[in-house]
Amino acid sequence: MFTVPNERLTFEIDLQPVGRRVQVGAGTTLLAAAQSAGVELQSVCGGVGTCSGCKVRVAAGAVSPVTAADNHEISREEIAAGYRLACQAIALSDVRLDIPPESLSAPQRVQVEGQGLDVKLDPVVFAVEIEVAPPSLGDLRSDLTRVNSTFAQQNGEVEVPFEVLAGLPQTLRAQNWAARLALRKVGSRFRVVGVLPPRSRMFGLAVDVGTTKLAAYLVDIENGRTVAQKGAVNPQIAYGEDVVSRISFANRDPAGQSVMQGKLIEAINLLAADLCAEAGAVPQQIVDAVVVGNTVMHHLFAGLPVHQLGTAPFVPVVADALEIPAARTGLALSSGALVYLPPNIAGYVGADHVAMLLGSGIHQDTRTVVAIDIGTNTEITLASRGRLVSCSCASGPAFEGAHIQHGMRAAPGAIERVRIIDGKVHTHTIGGVPPVGICGSGIVDAVAEMLDANVLDNRGNFHRDSTMAPPSDRQNKFVLAAAATGHAGDIAVTRSDVNEIQLAKAAIRTGIEILLREVGVSSADIDQVVIAGAFGSYLDIGSAVRLGMFPPLARERFHQIGNGAGSGARQMLISGDQRRTAEQIARQIEYVELANHPAFSEQFLTELCFLGARKDAQ
Amino acid sequence: MFTVPNERLTFEIDLQPVGRRVQVGAGTTLLAAAQSAGVELQSVCGGVGTCSGCKVRVAAGAVSPVTAADNHEISREEIAAGYRLACQAIALSDVRLDIPPESLSAPQRVQVEGQGLDVKLDPVVFAVEIEVAPPSLGDLRSDLTRVNSTFAQQNGEVEVPFEVLAGLPQTLRAQNWAARLALRKVGSRFRVVGVLPPRSRMFGLAVDVGTTKLAAYLVDIENGRTVAQKGAVNPQIAYGEDVVSRISFANRDPAGQSVMQGKLIEAINLLAADLCAEAGAVPQQIVDAVVVGNTVMHHLFAGLPVHQLGTAPFVPVVADALEIPAARTGLALSSGALVYLPPNIAGYVGADHVAMLLGSGIHQDTRTVVAIDIGTNTEITLASRGRLVSCSCASGPAFEGAHIQHGMRAAPGAIERVRIIDGKVHTHTIGGVPPVGICGSGIVDAVAEMLDANVLDNRGNFHRDSTMAPPSDRQNKFVLAAAATGHAGDIAVTRSDVNEIQLAKAAIRTGIEILLREVGVSSADIDQVVIAGAFGSYLDIGSAVRLGMFPPLARERFHQIGNGAGSGARQMLISGDQRRTAEQIARQIEYVELANHPAFSEQFLTELCFLGARKDAQ
Repeated sequence: MFTVPNERLTFEIDLQPVGRRVQVGAGTTLLAAAQSAGVELQSVCGGVGTCSGCKVRVAAGAVSPVTAADNHEISREEIAAGYRLACQAIALSDVRLDIPPESLSAPQRVQVEGQGLDVKLDPVVFAVEIEVAPPSLGDLRSDLTRVNSTFAQQNGEVEVPFEVLAGLPQTLRAQNWAARLALRKVGSRFRVVGVLPPRSRMFGLAVDVGTTKLAAYLVDIENGRTVAQKGAVNPQIAYGEDVVSRISFANRDPAGQSVMQGKLIEAINLLAADLCAEAGAVPQQIVDAVVVGNTVMHHLFAGLPVHQLGTAPFVPVVADALEIPAARTGLALSSGALVYLPPNIAGYVGADHVAMLLGSGIHQDTRTVVAIDIGTNTEITLASRGRLVSCSCASGPAFEGAHIQHGMRAAPGAIERVRIIDGKVHTHTIGGVPPVGICGSGIVDAVAEMLDANVLDNRGNFHRDSTMAPPSDRQNKFVLAAAATGHAGDIAVTRSDVNEIQLAKAAIRTGIEILLREVGVSSADIDQVVIAGAFGSYLDIGSAVRLGMFPPLARERFHQIGNGAGSGARQMLISGDQRRTAEQIARQIEYVELANHPAFSEQFLTELCFLGARKDAQ
Repeated sequence: MFTVPNERLTFEIDLQPVGRRVQVGAGTTLLAAAQSAGVELQSVCGGVGTCSGCKVRVAAGAVSPVTAADNHEISREEIAAGYRLACQAIALSDVRLDIPPESLSAPQRVQVEGQGLDVKLDPVVFAVEIEVAPPSLGDLRSDLTRVNSTFAQQNGEVEVPFEVLAGLPQTLRAQNWAARLALRKVGSRFRVVGVLPPRSRMFGLAVDVGTTKLAAYLVDIENGRTVAQKGAVNPQIAYGEDVVSRISFANRDPAGQSVMQGKLIEAINLLAADLCAEAGAVPQQIVDAVVVGNTVMHHLFAGLPVHQLGTAPFVPVVADALEIPAARTGLALSSGALVYLPPNIAGYVGADHVAMLLGSGIHQDTRTVVAIDIGTNTEITLASRGRLVSCSCASGPAFEGAHIQHGMRAAPGAIERVRIIDGKVHTHTIGGVPPVGICGSGIVDAVAEMLDANVLDNRGNFHRDSTMAPPSDRQNKFVLAAAATGHAGDIAVTRSDVNEIQLAKAAIRTGIEILLREVGVSSADIDQVVIAGAFGSYLDIGSAVRLGMFPPLARERFHQIGNGAGSGARQMLISGDQRRTAEQIARQIEYVELANHPAFSEQFLTELCFLGARKDAQ
């Protein structure tokens, strides 16, 4: 059945145990093949071979040779058994793959782990095919009346919003008076959100608008499958790296806010067009959308002013869930598509956190669970004793490589892993290329290893008596990679870098401890720590525990879920019930303002020290 | 009490029997003074002294000397009694005016005449003053929640639409957390359409969008008074003089339609700003709007495609009443203001005709009434025996001076009145300046007089044996004004001009006769003919009857109401009940398509002849 490598232009990839087959062109990676079949593999590294998320077993057929990345991420035994990184392997024949459960991406993995996150398909938008009598001198009814009466005969009263009306005449005539109406139920009536060619597929768009990155997902809302996904840089980054500088830009320049909104919408439109191209569709087939983001991104997307988010007490314009006509924001979807924005909790706990909580299933968990989104601002929610308590910590941009002397974003050449073994520093860079800087997971590793190697004391100072401590003339830095070809000078960790990490990890741990105190449980009671987001996915948990960023719990209690906000957004896209659940979560959350919490200062001072111990995390 | 002419900067004008007083600057005409007091005088000529609409009696005080216009429009006896044209007279002291009932503008005059058109004030928008607790570290609720909960305590659930939300933070902070909320009732809830400074006045804007002209009215919706009104040229005229050429432009140029919409909205925004300046207000205080126009203007205003209105069977996109957020059209009113567009009947019977019917009170009339809007397209409705039957006639642009050799719009220098007395032609031009052309009412007069003087026969041909008929070498024209200083050549009526008038008047009369036939009444049964619109106001009824344009009824059965559509629009602006009535009128109307009516061709051929007789109209 399986052919040997040859000159064929397409191959069939059989994805098991999922049971999907897909035809792909020669030269397609197995990861891309799986994606085109709507089978999502873990791919936190974005398909560059630096995580082992997309590990699969080639059960039959020929693929391209084992790469250095395969050898780095997969054990020799597994390679011998046919395991490969799907992002590295190119099909050279028809191939049958065996996908291990842990390689399926977040929502499915969570489902596999029994948290019951399989979402019942309950899309907000559905379709009805209609055929309308064309007008004549004997039938002068308006186009709207014509559609209304045809539809009403079969189904009931229908409402055609103004945005849809404007396109109706041309569409009806171009489609010879037949159409697939995309509809939403509004009370006892139906509202038209799109007028599509007969028998068109209908899609939904889920977007996670991060301060730095955008993640977009195209979902077939009639079967719930994610048919394409893509990331992009948030173009607002040109106006400031963090939310505070975006707010400043909006305050400084009267047109600033609408410029930033325009850039963001343009980027999402490009993503939507790319995703549609990949799925063989057009953006007019996108009849529904869910957009999540932190409160500032939420306001910038929607065109709500952000000024008041820049000054205490940082209140949002709106915290409730919103539905905005896509056309009003400039999004080019189906003419009447609405964009659903889940509720915000507070100025610094946004709709993305609500989506992440939904995606992580924390609201259905009867155990004590902490869910954390780590970023410049870290949002934490504690679920315990039937309560949901949240706070926001100013953890700063150190984990994104900012304020770190040799810091950089997680990009090729960034040191992402550091181990000190027998007094020797070992590093691993993203892409395996010569080091050019240190990213967030690298600096966390470095500091943890420096503590274990006794280079640093618990207060973050260099030990003068350590053999590995910098000599007095270089006392303020610890070299990870000496000057060499590919970078200008030593790549090192300075005392000041260590201090940044102390501040950041103290902020996070203080948030966790204050939430525990609010509910009256201790860190030992925590059954699970859910860590979301890109940095959180790369983070070495052992190192983070060693720093004291997280409580000293057994490793298996930590659960890195990747883009939980994106998963939550997709759940809301295919289920109205999930939207109501998100709103329920938001209502239930008790927000704790750390800035004026009586215990904050003392706790924060305590947490500045490195009191963690790696062994606790074993 | 009244002072003599002096150097004072302001005078008080006392308007009786209306009972309003107003302070005006020196140099203000009595017409402008009345307008600034919200007292509307008839002013079909636009205040240039060529109609007698604004005739008032100066009961006390000094005004500027009698003008030529006064002498032309007012009898010697009346001038002696203190009568003057309000548009010509400037107050030179405090003045008390006595306004005769016939000088009050349409709605009030109609009311005076007992047709019961006084509209009960029932505005759709009302106001509630609120004071909101400012946010603090102990009260982090969103701005929306803050407003919602304050309002709900007093009144019930409130909905803040997205357009309003975006401006809420700044407004609340700028107004120190107090506001006057402009609200509409939507089902059992309230919807915020504006957030105004505490105790602001609230206004509505009524606009009649004509193919050629715009008329805008600013109305205080809390007392129903029109506080300012203004006209302007429809800037779309640059893209075509009539609706057909506008549709062509929209079809030719992909951006054509939005260009025309943009120009129109810009012009309305300018009118709104001017009206507000006159009323000492800002456009953000305009919390409601009603816009009427023919079906093409309606679609162009709303941004609905007009393509299908250019080809048979000319069906509109929508015939039902519409409400569109002002912000969506580009109108700069209060952030959440909605624009109400009354229903259209058909492709060539638009919302302006519905508004005119409402303004004329035809729906409340138990008599047999014909209501006519004369234009390039003439809309006619017959109310009789409990039915409302309407049609549209292609009367062409002759009445606007187009397709007439020396034709022109009604502007200074246009011959607007023609009389042939003892074989001598007398003409009167708009503004009393030397003639430069002939406007619609002038050509109607001319042809009627030529018929009476036996210059033309009943078929529209020049009588060869008439002493006044043109000599054989000039046989195709009848000179109204010989070549002289101020115009290049003779201003004359040609055989071809007469033909245009034959076609135009035949179209209108055919429409009337077919409607009568539909209902089974005869022209003698008509109790009243209501004639709306600018041309209809200037038209000499006797001349029109002489041509056979109208049935030969006694002069007092004709009623020229001026801008009836504007009156209807204002009625809908101050009364939700009037909107429902307009919708009821639209539903009740039976539209008769003349193009395929079996009796059309024969009737039209009959009507081409000049079978009227001036004496019938006496």
